Amino acid sequence: MFSFKVIAESGTTRARAGLLQTAHGAVETPVFMPVGTLGTVKSLSPEELFDCEVGIILGNTYHLYLRPGCEVIRRFSGLHNFMHWDGAILTDSGGFQVFSLAKLRTITEEGVTFQSHIDGSQHVLTPEKAIEIQICLGSDIMMCLDECIQYPVDRDNAKGALELTTRWAARCKQIWQEHSDSSGALFGIVQGGMFKDLRAMSADALLENDFSGYAVGGLSVGEPKDLMFEIADFTLPRLPDAKPKYIMGTGTPADLIELVALGADMFDCVLPTRNARNGQMFTKSGTMNIYNSRFKDDPEPVEAGCRCYTCQNYSKAYLRHLYMAKELLAYRLNTIHNIHFYISLMKRVRKAICKDRFSEFRKAFYAQRESE
Amino acid sequence: MFSFKVIAESGTTRARAGLLQTAHGAVETPVFMPVGTLGTVKSLSPEELFDCEVGIILGNTYHLYLRPGCEVIRRFSGLHNFMHWDGAILTDSGGFQVFSLAKLRTITEEGVTFQSHIDGSQHVLTPEKAIEIQICLGSDIMMCLDECIQYPVDRDNAKGALELTTRWAARCKQIWQEHSDSSGALFGIVQGGMFKDLRAMSADALLENDFSGYAVGGLSVGEPKDLMFEIADFTLPRLPDAKPKYIMGTGTPADLIELVALGADMFDCVLPTRNARNGQMFTKSGTMNIYNSRFKDDPEPVEAGCRCYTCQNYSKAYLRHLYMAKELLAYRLNTIHNIHFYISLMKRVRKAICKDRFSEFRKAFYAQRESE
Repeated sequence: MFSFKVIAESGTTRARAGLLQTAHGAVETPVFMPVGTLGTVKSLSPEELFDCEVGIILGNTYHLYLRPGCEVIRRFSGLHNFMHWDGAILTDSGGFQVFSLAKLRTITEEGVTFQSHIDGSQHVLTPEKAIEIQICLGSDIMMCLDECIQYPVDRDNAKGALELTTRWAARCKQIWQEHSDSSGALFGIVQGGMFKDLRAMSADALLENDFSGYAVGGLSVGEPKDLMFEIADFTLPRLPDAKPKYIMGTGTPADLIELVALGADMFDCVLPTRNARNGQMFTKSGTMNIYNSRFKDDPEPVEAGCRCYTCQNYSKAYLRHLYMAKELLAYRLNTIHNIHFYISLMKRVRKAICKDRFSEFRKAFYAQRESE
Repeated sequence: MFSFKVIAESGTTRARAGLLQTAHGAVETPVFMPVGTLGTVKSLSPEELFDCEVGIILGNTYHLYLRPGCEVIRRFSGLHNFMHWDGAILTDSGGFQVFSLAKLRTITEEGVTFQSHIDGSQHVLTPEKAIEIQICLGSDIMMCLDECIQYPVDRDNAKGALELTTRWAARCKQIWQEHSDSSGALFGIVQGGMFKDLRAMSADALLENDFSGYAVGGLSVGEPKDLMFEIADFTLPRLPDAKPKYIMGTGTPADLIELVALGADMFDCVLPTRNARNGQMFTKSGTMNIYNSRFKDDPEPVEAGCRCYTCQNYSKAYLRHLYMAKELLAYRLNTIHNIHFYISLMKRVRKAICKDRFSEFRKAFYAQRESE
């Protein structure tokens, strides 16, 4: 069921437009995937996601494994049915959260032992288990378990982690072939920190397993932005062009445009959703804080011409009022706008690529921000 | 624009079905009005209220006066436009909140001086100002400022308060006639505590001002339930049958049915919305706490056959998961169900009255609760 094809390429950059086919619909790339950590994109209903033209969301294996747990989701034949979402779902492997949220980690060849950040209970996550959980979740695109390293880290540690990640990836591929019906997709994750030779080593080794797609992990972990782009620029061309390329956990609207220019197809990030809940709204001219007192009686929408439900029906003054009063509707209306902004940005990027006008689009994107 | 007519009466009780006409649509009575304290029924969009067939909501004058303030709402020509709600709005006078939330109150003949519960700023609320604020809000049904007393209170204090309330009501009527276009409605509020002769005195005095409708205030303030019904039973028949009769701030589903039987037409209460946010769901067989561990993997909706968005699309297991994880969507889905339950209950009550089967409906209502 899973397939990917490149539809159009930019003449002057590595930007490309593609089509991902999943068991839960076709997804046009470049694509932004809103984060639905616990079986819900915080504050939104699935219908609102569809209204924002979201085609694929990300679910967090670590969080869903701990709550509500696989035995519950299995009763619903997977996450789609449990959460009433009929679009595609990509699940991460749980690796990133084990290394960022959980406590008392012990890493061995076998896997990682950790304590739940919720109740301190002890769990073991192995490559096999990460895949089994994702199969239980009914994920359309699964990710291999990887060892996530911090920034900065020395070369030896980065090398050790990528080598373990590579061995784990092979085990993930094997169990995925044995236990899933293989109609979905399994992506490998390139690691290697900020060392180009290690990134090359990681990419080359992963390719031997012929994954459905490839992700670049370990970016946006605190490194300078230039370095992130340098590593992405180095790594992306080393991944096969016939496969989707996914930059994990990034980024701002400008980051996405730059990474598209470097050849990335897929993105996820908590920025539009988390920042919405903190009152920060994304617009073509930059970000604005909705709680700013200058919006106190501003009758205009967050962004003139924006077609999202929030901008079509509510003023900045009303949104500011809701936010100041900590009303639940505030988080939802802000989130709708930001998700719509990210999705619409990717749609405009794609259209530009298809018309071979990506470079012009990119220039116009920055010009619009500077003009305000 | 405002009118009220009685459509049908129950043969064996004082229950009646009516039709309220407002500038923002017709409202069938008996009616439950969800509470939208700060220009939003907490967690819901106006579209969701319409989907639940809500025709009228309550706005709190005290809260809206403090946040965002009249000068903001005036820029939007009223609350309807500000909050994107096209149905009817009833606003209270602010009296109840001044007496329950605000600090350092001083009551004089002129009005009440109080400190904001938000920032301690000092304000004066007079009968005239209460009406002016409600006119600014563009309320379809306005309420007279009343002095709200606690329970229990001695007869002298209750009498003093009702007499002040009566004089304030006359001032409210006068300024309303002078300053509103009088196309809306102004309701008087009967006070008098738990003393029947005082309730009679209050009702009789208010009638002299010929209000558009009459509310019974000062119930559900801590008195035993029997006493609440006794006072309602005594007071409601003393109000003119050609006018809508409104019991303020009450109550449970059973309370509403009993008060309908006593002749009440209108209700508001935070119970369905507040309890939803605390995980309590209303059903025909009684209440349930969605966080109960027995719902952990329950694939059934909160109420079989319920047509609300929540029950049509989500299981108890999913709602429990969202609630346990403190996900924002939990509050919204729970609220939709509870609001739908209250609205649908009033619709079924009305249908029964129109078919002259209210007593049978009432018996069946209790039988269904006991059978589970």
